[in-house]
Order: sequence, then C-alpha cells, then structure tokens
Amino acid sequence: MEWICKNLEKLREKRPLVQNITNFVVMNTTANALLAIGASPVMAHARDELEDMIKIADALVVNIGTLDEHWIASIEKAVEIASELGKPIILDPVGAGATRLRTKTSLKLLDMGDITILRGNFGEIKALLGEHGKTRGVDSAAYDMEEAKKLALEASKEFNTVAAVTGAVDYVSNGRDIYAVENGHKMLGRVTGTGCMVTSLTGAFVAIDEPLRAAVSALVIFGIAAEKAYEEAKYPGSFHVKLYDWLYRMDCELIKERAKVRRVEP
Amino acid sequence: MEWICKNLEKLREKRPLVQNITNFVVMNTTANALLAIGASPVMAHARDELEDMIKIADALVVNIGTLDEHWIASIEKAVEIASELGKPIILDPVGAGATRLRTKTSLKLLDMGDITILRGNFGEIKALLGEHGKTRGVDSAAYDMEEAKKLALEASKEFNTVAAVTGAVDYVSNGRDIYAVENGHKMLGRVTGTGCMVTSLTGAFVAIDEPLRAAVSALVIFGIAAEKAYEEAKYPGSFHVKLYDWLYRMDCELIKERAKVRRVEP
Amino acid sequence: MEWICKNLEKLREKRPLVQNITNFVVMNTTANALLAIGASPVMAHARDELEDMIKIADALVVNIGTLDEHWIASIEKAVEIASELGKPIILDPVGAGATRLRTKTSLKLLDMGDITILRGNFGEIKALLGEHGKTRGVDSAAYDMEEAKKLALEASKEFNTVAAVTGAVDYVSNGRDIYAVENGHKMLGRVTGTGCMVTSLTGAFVAIDEPLRAAVSALVIFGIAAEKAYEEAKYPGSFHVKLYDWLYRMDCELIKERAKVRRVEP
Repeated sequence: MEWICKNLEKLREKRPLVQNITNFVVMNTTANALLAIGASPVMAHARDELEDMIKIADALVVNIGTLDEHWIASIEKAVEIASELGKPIILDPVGAGATRLRTKTSLKLLDMGDITILRGNFGEIKALLGEHGKTRGVDSAAYDMEEAKKLALEASKEFNTVAAVTGAVDYVSNGRDIYAVENGHKMLGRVTGTGCMVTSLTGAFVAIDEPLRAAVSALVIFGIAAEKAYEEAKYPGSFHVKLYDWLYRMDCELIKERAKVRRVEP
Repeated sequence: MEWICKNLEKLREKRPLVQNITNFVVMNTTANALLAIGASPVMAHARDELEDMIKIADALVVNIGTLDEHWIASIEKAVEIASELGKPIILDPVGAGATRLRTKTSLKLLDMGDITILRGNFGEIKALLGEHGKTRGVDSAAYDMEEAKKLALEASKEFNTVAAVTGAVDYVSNGRDIYAVENGHKMLGRVTGTGCMVTSLTGAFVAIDEPLRAAVSALVIFGIAAEKAYEEAKYPGSFHVKLYDWLYRMDCELIKERAKVRRVEP
Repeated sequence: MEWICKNLEKLREKRPLVQNITNFVVMNTTANALLAIGASPVMAHARDELEDMIKIADALVVNIGTLDEHWIASIEKAVEIASELGKPIILDPVGAGATRLRTKTSLKLLDMGDITILRGNFGEIKALLGEHGKTRGVDSAAYDMEEAKKLALEASKEFNTVAAVTGAVDYVSNGRDIYAVENGHKMLGRVTGTGCMVTSLTGAFVAIDEPLRAAVSALVIFGIAAEKAYEEAKYPGSFHVKLYDWLYRMDCELIKERAKVRRVEP
C-alpha cells in the first residue's frame, strides 16, 4: 500500500491544521496524537471565532463525547461553516446509542449532508443506522465481523459519507469500495480516547488524500503504532506513552512491513 | 483481607460502568484509572442525557473540582436521578473549605440525603463538618491522625454516608466501624488528580461490594499501585505512568503481600 | 545566574498557590508541571468563587486557549479581582492573531492595565502589537531573532508589562532591560501545552521574585528540563513524561551548568 506511505510523507510536509471540537476527556490526547504524527492541532468552540478558525484549518473534526446544548450549538455552526467553505468534516459519534441525545445529535449532523467521514465503533454505527430504520439501535452490540462490513457499507450509503467502523477488524467504505484493516492492538481498549485519536488523525489525512484512502491511512498507521507500542510496553500507562512515540517514529518501512489492509467484496 | 482480592476479581469480571461528572483537570486521568483497573468509564454532564446514562451505569461519581453554575445544576440533577434509580453515588468535595461555593455545594449535595460514599482529604472533610457546626472550616488544616479518624466517624454520622478521609493514614467509616488504610505513597501528592482517581475507583468498587468495603478496597488497591509505581519510578512524570500500569497489574498476590488495612476502635 | 537558583529554592520552600483559568487542553498538563516544580496549582473559573480563590492564591494565570463568552466573562472578573487584591497576573494570549476573538480578548485584558507578565510566542505577540497599530497581525509569522527582541521590548512598553516572547531564542523585557534565554529544545513543539506550562511556571516564580526575573527563571528552568528530558527520551510521548521528571529533579547544579541566559542591548 504505497499510497499510505506517500500520505504520511505528504502530511509531514504539509503539516495540516486540524480544527477540533472534541470532548474534554481527550482534548490533550488528540492534540498530542496530531503533533506526534506531524500535523498541527487547534481546539476552538466559541461561536464567535469558529469562522476565523475554520478558514485557516485544513479539516474540521467533530467529536460529541461530552456534548451539551452549548457545545451542540457550536458543533452545528462549525459544520455549517465548514460545509460552506468546502472543508472536509470528520464526525466521531461517541456514545451514539448510549443516550438519545447522542444518537439524535449525530443523526442531525449527518442529515446536514456534508460529513466527509463518519468514524465510529461497531455499536455506535449500528445505533445510528438503527435509528434510521435499518437495524435496532444498540450500543452494547457485540462486534461481528461480517456485520461490521455491512454496517460500513450501509452507513456510507445511508449517510452519503465515507464510513469507518472500527473493531477487531476495521471496515471502511465509500458506498462502493470496502477496505478491511487488521492493524491495531486490544490494549487500545485500556486507554481512553484512542478511538478519538484515530478520528483526529483521519482529520489530518483527509487534508492529504481523498476520504476513503484518508480514513484507511489513519487506521493503518495508528494500528501499527499500537502494535509497536505494545511490543515495548505491555501495560496501559506505558503503552499510552509509547503510542505517541510510535506515531512520531512511523515511517514507510514500518508501513510496508506491517500494513494489514485489503480491499474486500461487498 | 481476602475480600479485597475477591472484589478486584469480581470487578474485572463485571466491568462496571461508572458515570462521572468530574472536573476538567482529571477527566482523562480518572477515565484511564478506571480502564486500567478493569472498569468502564463514561463522562456525561448534559442534563438532557443524564437519565439515559445513569440508567445504564452501575454508579455515579460526582467531583466538584471545576464547578460552575451550569455544572452544579447538572450535578444536582444527576444526584436526584441516581437516588431515584437506587444507584450508588460517590461525592468528592474537591476544594471544600477553600471557597464558600465549594463548601456550600458539597453540603447541599450531602443534604439531599443519598450520597453513598463521601471521599475527601482531611481539610475538605473538616471544612464540611465545620460548616455544619462541628469544627471550624479550614482547608489548610494540617493532617492529624487521631483527628482524621474522628472526622471519618463524625462525617459518616453527620451526613449519613460512608466517609473516607484520606491522608498519611486513610480512615473510612460507616458511622459504626472504622478502617485504617496505610497504603499509598507521598509521591501521589506530586501528580494532579490522584485523589480524584481513587474516588473514581471507589465508584467502580461500590458496584461490587457494600460501601464501606468498597471504599476500603479502592484505597488499598490504589495505595499498593502507588507503592509499586514508586519502586519503579522515583519522579512524578514516570511515577504517574506507572500508576496506571500497576492498577492494571494488580492481583491477589500483591494485595495479600502488601495490604495494610485494619479495623480500629472509634 | 545565582538568582535563578535562589528562586527555585524559595519556590520549593514557599510552595506558592497558583490559580489558573486556562484552556481545557492543558489543564492537566499545567497542574502537573506546577506540582512537579514544587508549587500548588488550583483551577477555578466560576464567577461565584473567584474572589475566595484569588484571595488565597499567590498569583493568577490566565490562558485563553479555549475561550468562549462565559470563560471570557470569568477571566475579566478574575483579572479585576486580582488587580484589586494586588496579586500578580500572567497572561498567555494563546492563538492571538489566529482569530479576531482571541486578539480582541487579549488586548482588552492588556488594556485593563494590570497584566504583570505577558507570555506568548512570536506570532501572538506580533499580532497583538499589530492590532495596536505597530505591526501587521500575523499568526503564522516566521520567527526572526532580531524581531523577537524588538517585539519583547515594544510589547513591554506598549502594554506596560513584562513581555516574554518565546521561540528559538526567548526574549524577555520590562521595557528597559532585555534578557535572552537560549535554553529549551525543539521537541517541545511536538507536545501540546508546553508554552502553557512555562506560563504557569511563570505564575509560580512571580510569587517569589520581581516579574522580569520571574519570567526569566521560568524560561531557563523549563528549558533546561526540556534539554535533560530529550537526553533521556528522543520521542514525544516519553519526552513529555520526562519533562515532569526533570522539573522535579531540577537543582542549582543543573542551573549553574546549563543556564544560557544573558542581558542584551536593546
């Protein structure tokens, strides 16, 4: 997958500015992941400065992990501005399915029509499709590989977006093509915000390549970083630290050696 | 203390979902502590989703470390909902005594009548009792072992709760029985949010055992993790990282070997 | 620079309480930096408790990194209270120049007249002076050593404050004297909030020494910590951890051996 390597090189050359409206839990974490890979993070949520900030940004990342009415208003305004300015928008529907507010907010943002990439876990995407009448909305749904693939394809069609459904195997689809990514490590589940990190990285790659390949690049690179981190550190505190180290140390040789990505049939 | 070991095993089997309304400084920290020990953290503060979230949670942790009027309203609503649903509620009165707003807010929450466990440091609990007419409210009060024991007993009676007063020796009481816990390390004072972490862990254990033993379990296990972390790392940055590692690595053997907990007379 | 060493020793003896109204991204980071060096951090933003908190604090640090209308109101109130109480105030104008809201808010705070120390990067200070009619406001301005020196001098005169302009070489001026600090490491740019950390540390040192020397002390000590951290850790995750370790381990011997600070001519 030569293009993943090229994307990384281009990212480091361009240093895209990624504007994040994200949750309080992961603000530090996602900013550090973006800096480690070679991008520039910025976090702004005040309605009075969103336009100025999005104008100079290369992508907008929206993450609803600790939403409330004020942040929802900011997020909606940010999505509107980014749409008008033609900037790519990444949505992470954290906790969709767990509360109606999260499901409803995610669907409203998707219905606005300009989400470039939707990146969620199996349960979240399933819940969003369920609320749209396709499946039952369940957050705690146990991951199933075949179903994950279908969810990616369905979500991409239903929401007219690229959908990345992450789990034991990640599936990414633009409604026609589907990629399966098998990089990653289960220790990621023991550190908060690792899903949010990969969403932010997706925001950096979408400034470099088209959405489907951008989402795949972020998942592969983050997954390899996790694998390398685990080789050096078997426990979650140390593993978390090494994750940033390996985003920084990521290179074409590692990608060539480690990438587990393939196109799959619908 | 066989039951501490059993509690840890049960926690890892059940993976309780702990809903936190906590301060901005420690959101990441406490989520990672819960994940490291084997629980599931969630952070939500929007009034519109509190009921949905608390319904699926096993415990509610409330921490007033960066409160304001909006968060106070959310916290009060969350405590009401958790009371109605019969979910255990842990209160960490961060900074009570330092400002009147924090003292008043803590007392109001305690007066609502359903705080299951109150976990604070010596000065905070002393301030809360002081405002209730028992002692003078002083935040900077120097820790005193005999007084700490009395504060735990008094606070538990006064507020009809289990009170955990932490310091050089931690005292935990349900108004009748008192436990003293001597695990821990003074390097914890050089990392922000370590008190908040043990409060969150208490929220995980109260989903497993009755409040007095839950609070003691969290203090012993967190204290041992700190001791092991310090054996590997003498400076605060590295110590902080190792703390998560040792929460993850905690096991019955370590607890058996290290637990310094005893019942004491009132 | 014997006085830098003395300042560190006094700081550790006094353990100054630094009240921070700062951005969500770095709250944890800056609290840990203050604890590591030996100071006491507190974070409070509720208007109802600002007076109580600032009364017991030794300095107020204001950082506009994730501002919005509510936080601006809190910040303005905090600055008023600190002015009245004669407490030193440090301003970090994060992102000034990037959005008009940030530039405007920073200038309003500076115009209130009691900012003791302004600590910003080259582009931020340039933007603030630009908006005041001295230079063009550009955030992405490329660092230039000669210009950085002039910016420090001009900003200190224009805003009647001590101005610290950080970059490859940091310049600090009180409007007459200028210090150049060459400690630091470029890896700091790969960890979020390192500028905010040095601002917070400046808040601790201004409780110990007069503003010009306080700002220089913070920059030198933080810079040396970064150099030592990099000697042990070449990648950003591990480097970040070691930064706290070396703030904690900082001592007079290291300062004597490493400090690169000199007075320069205007």
